[in-house]
Amino acid sequence: MTPIPSRPVVGVLHPGAMGAAVGSALRPRAGAVVWAAAGRSQTTSKRAELADLVGVPDVAELARRSDVVISVCPPHAAREVADEVAAALDAPRGADAASGTSDAPNAAPAPPGGARRPIYVDANAVSPATVRAIADRLGADRVVDAAIIGPPAWERGHTVLWLSGAAARDVAALFAGSPFDARVLGPELGTASALKACFALQSKALPAIWLELAAAARGYGVEDELRGELERHGVDLAAALRRAAGGAEKAWRWAGEMDEAADAVAAAGLPDGFSRAAAEIYRRLADGRLTP
Amino acid sequence: MTPIPSRPVVGVLHPGAMGAAVGSALRPRAGAVVWAAAGRSQTTSKRAELADLVGVPDVAELARRSDVVISVCPPHAAREVADEVAAALDAPRGADAASGTSDAPNAAPAPPGGARRPIYVDANAVSPATVRAIADRLGADRVVDAAIIGPPAWERGHTVLWLSGAAARDVAALFAGSPFDARVLGPELGTASALKACFALQSKALPAIWLELAAAARGYGVEDELRGELERHGVDLAAALRRAAGGAEKAWRWAGEMDEAADAVAAAGLPDGFSRAAAEIYRRLADGRLTP
Repeated sequence: MTPIPSRPVVGVLHPGAMGAAVGSALRPRAGAVVWAAAGRSQTTSKRAELADLVGVPDVAELARRSDVVISVCPPHAAREVADEVAAALDAPRGADAASGTSDAPNAAPAPPGGARRPIYVDANAVSPATVRAIADRLGADRVVDAAIIGPPAWERGHTVLWLSGAAARDVAALFAGSPFDARVLGPELGTASALKACFALQSKALPAIWLELAAAARGYGVEDELRGELERHGVDLAAALRRAAGGAEKAWRWAGEMDEAADAVAAAGLPDGFSRAAAEIYRRLADGRLTP
Repeated sequence: MTPIPSRPVVGVLHPGAMGAAVGSALRPRAGAVVWAAAGRSQTTSKRAELADLVGVPDVAELARRSDVVISVCPPHAAREVADEVAAALDAPRGADAASGTSDAPNAAPAPPGGARRPIYVDANAVSPATVRAIADRLGADRVVDAAIIGPPAWERGHTVLWLSGAAARDVAALFAGSPFDARVLGPELGTASALKACFALQSKALPAIWLELAAAARGYGVEDELRGELERHGVDLAAALRRAAGGAEKAWRWAGEMDEAADAVAAAGLPDGFSRAAAEIYRRLADGRLTP
């Protein structure tokens, strides 16, 4: 028996560039794809509209109306988003819930007392420990661990959505034929996040080394000599820095992802310094203390 | 006035693969190139012989006979070697010194009381702080900071010997026309070592990331999936691991170099996690706790 009804209401928290793509990918199979307008920017609102997502007033309303909630947010915010959803589900249906609009056309009315609990998909770049903490809050059998590797997907062939957890197959089915290539890693929570953390050592920790060595060489007044030595060894430092600095506008988010990746490698009994140092480099890049 | 006589006696501590190449490179300009036999392996002895270096009994004898001492040793041993030399120079000429052989044909007799102090070239992959500690022991005007980037040089075009310190130009002159391309970075001690530490972030910290991410993926049971994702992003994990594991036999030395590089970047006010984690990875690789 699938824990997800056919034509489910899917709530997306939140429709950033990736969240909007995820929401759009689910429209063919969902009764409705909803998002929570409260506190979101004009950009997000515009993006949600373009992706044909349906606005509901707030996270509480979204949580109560949805059969599936998908969290796509900056890594450092993943627990908070899960907590908001859990709080909405735990709350007795009171004045606040009763005021809900019915912008989401296919949303089934929620049963009284918050008894209906959605499947909660955490699609963020977090550590397995964070996923488990979220499962403790929302129920291990209702939480699915997801990891997106690739850009926001508007066509097939670029982006894989890795899934693990008891309901991973059911969630994968929602993405069948969509631009997201959904792949199931197994029933254990944390496996999808672990894969993403390992991948991030390459995609985000490694580039940060270039930013660091350039900054160190600048500090010691040997930047030209270092550039020359690297060139002699087949490395174009300027090009490596350009690529690494390409993450500058996302650096504030990458810092959080590196914190979580560090927790993941530490939990595997390995030194976490690569990701911890990368987190610090991205924090400095984000607030201008470090320049590429 | 140069602090180095023409046709100086040069002492090499110790003739490993790199030390033997350095010693050999200096033979045309040196009166003699000597090495200290005590406690060295048969391999070292053979290597010194092949490079036409002249044996003296021990470090104390070498220190007292040499106009220039060049330390080429594992990074973690750099201070100890400098201490040994300093102790020999500080000691009154006693029974131990009097027993010295005269295998080194051109060695001038040392003046009594240890008054003659050689130029001491630390050519090891250490932090600027370690170089300064060595200078505190041996005299800042007598110490030259050196960093070798490239393989043991038997022909020109592959290896640069970076030099900094008060007598850097005089030491560079000894290598003129040799397989080592000697380049002077300036009068400040630590600059050559800093350059090497920055370079090592690329040559040694960066490869260690591949070892770590493979180990983490193995731990989480997602090695195949990680390999697939990396391949999809143009990275051949197996090839990266082969290259990284190429350092396995030198891993015990690389661990020390990464410790020193970490001190160097920390002193520049940057996060030292990349090099600290790499040091730990190489320690585990050296003692078999980690397999590529």
